[in-house]
Amino acid sequence: MLSEFSLIERFFERPTSALKSPEPALRGDRPKATLGIGDDCALLAPRRGQQLAISTDMLVEGRHFFPDVPPYALGHKALAVNLSDLAAMGAEPRAFTLALGLPRADEAWLESFSQGLFDIAQRFDCELIGGDTTSAPAVNICITVFGDVPPARALRRDAARPGDDIWVSGVLGNARAGLGIKLGEWSAASPDDERRLVRALELPEPRVALGMALRGVAHAALDLSDGLAGDLLHILERSKMQASVNIDDVPRSPEVAALQQELQQQYMLAGGDDYELCFTAPVGERSKIERIGQRLDVLLTRIGTIEGPAPYGHAPDHAPAIGWRDASGKAVSLTLQGFDHFHAD
Amino acid sequence: MLSEFSLIERFFERPTSALKSPEPALRGDRPKATLGIGDDCALLAPRRGQQLAISTDMLVEGRHFFPDVPPYALGHKALAVNLSDLAAMGAEPRAFTLALGLPRADEAWLESFSQGLFDIAQRFDCELIGGDTTSAPAVNICITVFGDVPPARALRRDAARPGDDIWVSGVLGNARAGLGIKLGEWSAASPDDERRLVRALELPEPRVALGMALRGVAHAALDLSDGLAGDLLHILERSKMQASVNIDDVPRSPEVAALQQELQQQYMLAGGDDYELCFTAPVGERSKIERIGQRLDVLLTRIGTIEGPAPYGHAPDHAPAIGWRDASGKAVSLTLQGFDHFHAD
Repeated sequence: MLSEFSLIERFFERPTSALKSPEPALRGDRPKATLGIGDDCALLAPRRGQQLAISTDMLVEGRHFFPDVPPYALGHKALAVNLSDLAAMGAEPRAFTLALGLPRADEAWLESFSQGLFDIAQRFDCELIGGDTTSAPAVNICITVFGDVPPARALRRDAARPGDDIWVSGVLGNARAGLGIKLGEWSAASPDDERRLVRALELPEPRVALGMALRGVAHAALDLSDGLAGDLLHILERSKMQASVNIDDVPRSPEVAALQQELQQQYMLAGGDDYELCFTAPVGERSKIERIGQRLDVLLTRIGTIEGPAPYGHAPDHAPAIGWRDASGKAVSLTLQGFDHFHAD
Repeated sequence: MLSEFSLIERFFERPTSALKSPEPALRGDRPKATLGIGDDCALLAPRRGQQLAISTDMLVEGRHFFPDVPPYALGHKALAVNLSDLAAMGAEPRAFTLALGLPRADEAWLESFSQGLFDIAQRFDCELIGGDTTSAPAVNICITVFGDVPPARALRRDAARPGDDIWVSGVLGNARAGLGIKLGEWSAASPDDERRLVRALELPEPRVALGMALRGVAHAALDLSDGLAGDLLHILERSKMQASVNIDDVPRSPEVAALQQELQQQYMLAGGDDYELCFTAPVGERSKIERIGQRLDVLLTRIGTIEGPAPYGHAPDHAPAIGWRDASGKAVSLTLQGFDHFHAD
């Protein structure tokens, strides 16, 4: 059994989190944390002209991931879902803290978990600056992430405007289809297809570059963690708007498109865990957005329109509605099971 | 059962976390978060000339608190231990995020927990700016706290210098004595005494004003969460120093002083949960420090000396030692059980 301190030192102190020169803000290069793991607090020097975007997520074994998930993938995903929140604000990743509850200190598990965590952290230049480890009845990972975004350029949920196009990145439903495979709900045509879908579930790629490219272009944005149907409502509620969405335009992979319609809609619209961005933007920005998609090699698809102010005003009980339509313009009535931590188990 | 979103809105969205004017940094008053709960990220505008001190802690039911702890006290303590980390850096509290794992959504429990949390948050002007709630097998509270401290004035663990006095605030051992009462290890002379000790355990008061007053006065500092014997070692290891401590000078309450010697030492030196500050300062600062104690009405006691560089160099296996002495100067050999999340259960 490792002690808490040797555990932190062995798996989570990396050269990049060591003490930097005392005053990096005075140097010309990109300021990092001035003081990392090993003191009561980490110290983060603000960058000139930037606000700090901050998000926190708690992932619990048996709730957000299976006990037998590969620890490398878990380390990846724990940071990826937080980076996705930064992406949804148009923020540039900078640093994160990690609090880790563990039933036991399993060295092989920790080695692989920390490798997955540091691999994605390094790719996105996001430094581990502090943490806490404790024993807990189930694995519990709480990450708080910090990013930079210039004031007034953050992509917020309350900024959708009438007439805006509604866009999504990537394809929707793959992660939920991968979960369906793990749960035995269905089988894909080939082991390769199944691996691809499970990979979408376990190793989501946060759309950080896209979020930053959409600064000053998109109006409202968020990341799709719980499913389009529920997540888009958050934009509509905060912006006090209504929307129409063309279901047939919602982008999906060939594997999901091959499913029977009801399962397809469930996976695409209420599946969650896609970590794609959903954003609204003026019609006049269409060609600019298409060029961003080409430059970043990210599929960007228009799926609907912000129709105008919600009729019910601000009362939270009267959620602004999404009108779902098919390609012919006909209204479609959906029965979706959403994801809610205290409802749907 | 409450849904995740109505739970967040009902118990954790307060007027102080609502949307502020868009550019508070341009106003003359103290900048708060520009965007709080309800978006993908919170936005925090840096204050000119300040670095951000960041700390994260995870508290787990059955590990850090009893399942039947009063929820008001739990809400208080969850933030208090984080504010104590800010105090140990000399940082001024500013904001925090809360990730909360719950076995069930118990409204009465949440009402009381959030009241305890917001009462101390308001007293220390520390705003809840973001969060996450999820179901979990046991209550799990992960708070990340943010404070401001001017560059180069932060109180670090690695800054102890030869000849420094070693100081502690308050009295040590009360929290552990309170835990002893809850565990049935001993009984105090009166119910009032017992209440006072249990209160020290459940409602610790972070030494925020003291930490800020020690900027530019103290060299090294930390907060006593695991017990003086273990925590002082962190300063010594980081500073590569040795120390001598006079056990008879370690301040204790009359209740702890009445215990038999071995229990007394165990509670004072290895009990933990005191959240007092331990700091080192030059001899020349004694009178200034005494005046700070008088002004803030905080007991400040000199308990020892930083003797000089550790003989073993930087090897982590050779921890720099504390020489424990009694009032006559005689060396005392201690057998203490320290607190380690993966050792002592």
